[in-house]
Amino acid sequence: MAEWKNLDKLAAFNDLKNAKAVKLKEVMAGDNGAKRVKEYSIDMAADMTYNYAAKAVDEEIIDKLQKLADEAELTEKFEALYNGEVINTGEKRLVLHQLTRGQLGNKVVADGVDKREFYVGVQKKIADFANKVHAGEITNAKGEKFTTVVQIGIGGSDLGPRAMYLALENWAKATGNFKMEAKFISNVDPDDAAGVLNGVDVAHAIFILVSKSGTTLETLTNESFVKDALKKAGLDASKHMIAVTSETSPLAKSSDYLDAFFMDDFIGGRFSSTSAVGGAVLSLAFGPEVFARFLDGAAKEDKLATNKDIKKNPAMMDALIGVYERNVLGFGATAVLPYSQALSRFPAHLQQADMESNGKSVNRFGEPVNYVTGPIIFGEPGTNGQHSFYQLLHQGTDIIPLQFVGFKNSQIGTDVNIQGSTSQQKLCANVAAQIVAFACGKDDENKNKYFDGGRPSSIITGEKLTPEALGALLSHFENKIMFQGFTWNLNSFDQEGVQLGKVLAKKVLAHDTDGALKAYSDLLNI
Amino acid sequence: MAEWKNLDKLAAFNDLKNAKAVKLKEVMAGDNGAKRVKEYSIDMAADMTYNYAAKAVDEEIIDKLQKLADEAELTEKFEALYNGEVINTGEKRLVLHQLTRGQLGNKVVADGVDKREFYVGVQKKIADFANKVHAGEITNAKGEKFTTVVQIGIGGSDLGPRAMYLALENWAKATGNFKMEAKFISNVDPDDAAGVLNGVDVAHAIFILVSKSGTTLETLTNESFVKDALKKAGLDASKHMIAVTSETSPLAKSSDYLDAFFMDDFIGGRFSSTSAVGGAVLSLAFGPEVFARFLDGAAKEDKLATNKDIKKNPAMMDALIGVYERNVLGFGATAVLPYSQALSRFPAHLQQADMESNGKSVNRFGEPVNYVTGPIIFGEPGTNGQHSFYQLLHQGTDIIPLQFVGFKNSQIGTDVNIQGSTSQQKLCANVAAQIVAFACGKDDENKNKYFDGGRPSSIITGEKLTPEALGALLSHFENKIMFQGFTWNLNSFDQEGVQLGKVLAKKVLAHDTDGALKAYSDLLNI
Repeated sequence: MAEWKNLDKLAAFNDLKNAKAVKLKEVMAGDNGAKRVKEYSIDMAADMTYNYAAKAVDEEIIDKLQKLADEAELTEKFEALYNGEVINTGEKRLVLHQLTRGQLGNKVVADGVDKREFYVGVQKKIADFANKVHAGEITNAKGEKFTTVVQIGIGGSDLGPRAMYLALENWAKATGNFKMEAKFISNVDPDDAAGVLNGVDVAHAIFILVSKSGTTLETLTNESFVKDALKKAGLDASKHMIAVTSETSPLAKSSDYLDAFFMDDFIGGRFSSTSAVGGAVLSLAFGPEVFARFLDGAAKEDKLATNKDIKKNPAMMDALIGVYERNVLGFGATAVLPYSQALSRFPAHLQQADMESNGKSVNRFGEPVNYVTGPIIFGEPGTNGQHSFYQLLHQGTDIIPLQFVGFKNSQIGTDVNIQGSTSQQKLCANVAAQIVAFACGKDDENKNKYFDGGRPSSIITGEKLTPEALGALLSHFENKIMFQGFTWNLNSFDQEGVQLGKVLAKKVLAHDTDGALKAYSDLLNI
Repeated sequence: MAEWKNLDKLAAFNDLKNAKAVKLKEVMAGDNGAKRVKEYSIDMAADMTYNYAAKAVDEEIIDKLQKLADEAELTEKFEALYNGEVINTGEKRLVLHQLTRGQLGNKVVADGVDKREFYVGVQKKIADFANKVHAGEITNAKGEKFTTVVQIGIGGSDLGPRAMYLALENWAKATGNFKMEAKFISNVDPDDAAGVLNGVDVAHAIFILVSKSGTTLETLTNESFVKDALKKAGLDASKHMIAVTSETSPLAKSSDYLDAFFMDDFIGGRFSSTSAVGGAVLSLAFGPEVFARFLDGAAKEDKLATNKDIKKNPAMMDALIGVYERNVLGFGATAVLPYSQALSRFPAHLQQADMESNGKSVNRFGEPVNYVTGPIIFGEPGTNGQHSFYQLLHQGTDIIPLQFVGFKNSQIGTDVNIQGSTSQQKLCANVAAQIVAFACGKDDENKNKYFDGGRPSSIITGEKLTPEALGALLSHFENKIMFQGFTWNLNSFDQEGVQLGKVLAKKVLAHDTDGALKAYSDLLNI
């Protein structure tokens, strides 16, 4: 049994704090810089690599990170997780999202159900349903094919699936895998649902209601919104809706839906993209085969995360460098910067996955910790970000570690050659240039044009953003977050911090308020 | 003449550092909290208010902020700016974006041109052009009306206009002001242009090429991309393109464009939404009258920013509370959280406007400063954010000040009543609840369910997100950023930090690399 200890109780952490700091600007100069780029690289799945040459680490620090991984028993804890221990202690739940895409360890049986079989069964059921929709066997009441799928969900039922859809939309169109357009309704702001519905041919739309509990206020409200719209269009809502929910939810056996596809309490919302939550919408949009390829990439990457050797475990290396930056070097944020327009909402997904998992001040036993935990995560795609907030990243007063992502090839393949290079080459040239600019800086007598460098980054590179690559990318970050949570001794799988706001919002709506809460309610005319 | 001094040389700042800290949780409790909500409120333009009750300030601190404003001569510096002093000292330029929407002070003449007349003249020219497009007097070669406008630009030529378009799209549709759909191409990633073009009927599209210098690599590349697409569709590109640029740019007098609309060096990209950069696309999308209303809201808000009394100057109050939070309380980031789906990209615009302006380590004379400057800015609309990163905001180990925005009414007006309240009421109830939850927290013996509170926020409230309200909102933040830059003694109007990356990217493309830069180029196959 792995032992759960606070970070500051680990001898390896105290040893790490005493490691000699690496002067990034110096080690990245000249031939040594080139050597680091070649050596500080770990293979990922789907022909990708994680390269940490431009991080402020060296052999001594990597060695200490390995010792920290060992003492914190990170891979043992991961093993316990995928073998079905109750890792989400607060809610007394297993944590099984890796099982949705592969069998890493032992058979996991809960409540008499083989969970891997359960997840595979749901995927198969979704695949059959999607194939029938695509074949015109499941249609609207007039027997016409559905042309659009609209996901109704919020948080993990929105951010991950939306980011994955956008990541593969153009790839699918370019490769003949595009089946139908997907749209997303999430916000309780009525203008979200109304705006999306204004742009959808509801008579040929199929809606997916996604709520694990079947009680999410925003999602149920938006369901009613959609049902109203269908009714006004003279349509039978129950012929246009499916549900993704848990078997025990009020939505599970309702005649309001064409069909229902199940997830369970062992899949956290922010880790649900590879479950039915992502599966239904992505299988409808791109076909079940594409979704299977996405799962395959994630499963292969998960396998790498079981490796005890930090130099062969990209997620663990990434996680521990992050802990070093956060708890030793004192950096408070990480920017996620994919040089890929298709990944435009990937940073927003990671923002949830990371900040909701590790933005906590108590350990897994409910005791306050004496160290900082999850950083702020934000980001936009490059090169757009270069023309936005990179000024602060280069010359601001705080150092912000950077996570780049880049692909050698575009998804669509249409390109233009200007001034001797294609747009794809320009894109890649920019990310290469940025890494070096951040690490090495530039001297200048004019201090306004001076770059002090020493700003650390890593990059994940790939051949092309395919379904497999996307799955591997998703798995990498999910597992990075998991390893960081283990290292900080947090329960990364609950989210008690979202409860208080819900309770107070109910009070406002019930006009059960006084003091400041009443005053703000008055201010907003509620 | 105002005197430019570093923040740490101001007596009022040192006095502020010694102010007694406010215990937010205590002052926001009970009747005192309600009293604060009523009193700590400043009228803005367009029926909006800036409310700072939930900020960690009291009369003593506000008094010290006023003294800081006075000693730093903030309104005097603003006056110098709008009267045409060379405030952008690094680039030796005036800073005149407020003049695009009103005459605040004296007539400003540069190079013999009355600049206010120049900006108004361009607006009129744009209005005439847009009216002719809408009337079918300017058409494609076949005499058919244009139905889509596509903006090609990056950074300030993209983020602001895109955020403003999205902010008003549904309002315009609901009020009969919608003229044509707008799309945006920004990234040098070829999949951005290819993806957008795949969704556009190019035969009926008019493209706006936006580049002040006429030399922005991404924008010129994407122009070629678009020209290729037009050519392939058998169309004459010059009949489908207009330019927004400076009079001295190579694009200004080119026969490649139907027409050209001018800006000048006195409008920074990130402050250009109210110039021709925003004017062309917004006037085409919504009509010139809507754009004029947007300018009117901004002009009215600018006027408030001239007030020396901090209690009547919402942008200055917001700015100085931010400086207090950054330089005295030590908070490193600000989250922008609009409870309005229409403002989905407003945080991304502010991210550029703020971080590119004040993410600097040298003062306006090029001397390193001894204090922290611009914070990280990030955000997503509520209630979506509640289901994403709010966990960290509530229970994370770092405190992140919050900027809420909320409107009493939706834009479209379609709503649904569930459990006794409309979606709009739920939206507003949530923002009211969040402010109190962050400020007051909640005791709980279970430390996992404990909220320590003391997390500061302010809120801007309005009746509805109209063009006037949007203009006022934009002006508020532009002026907040300006006042913070003055307080930190920065030049907020240049961006030298973006140059090094450009230089190195050119080297990569010319294969003029060695060391790490060559190694990264190899890694990315350039």
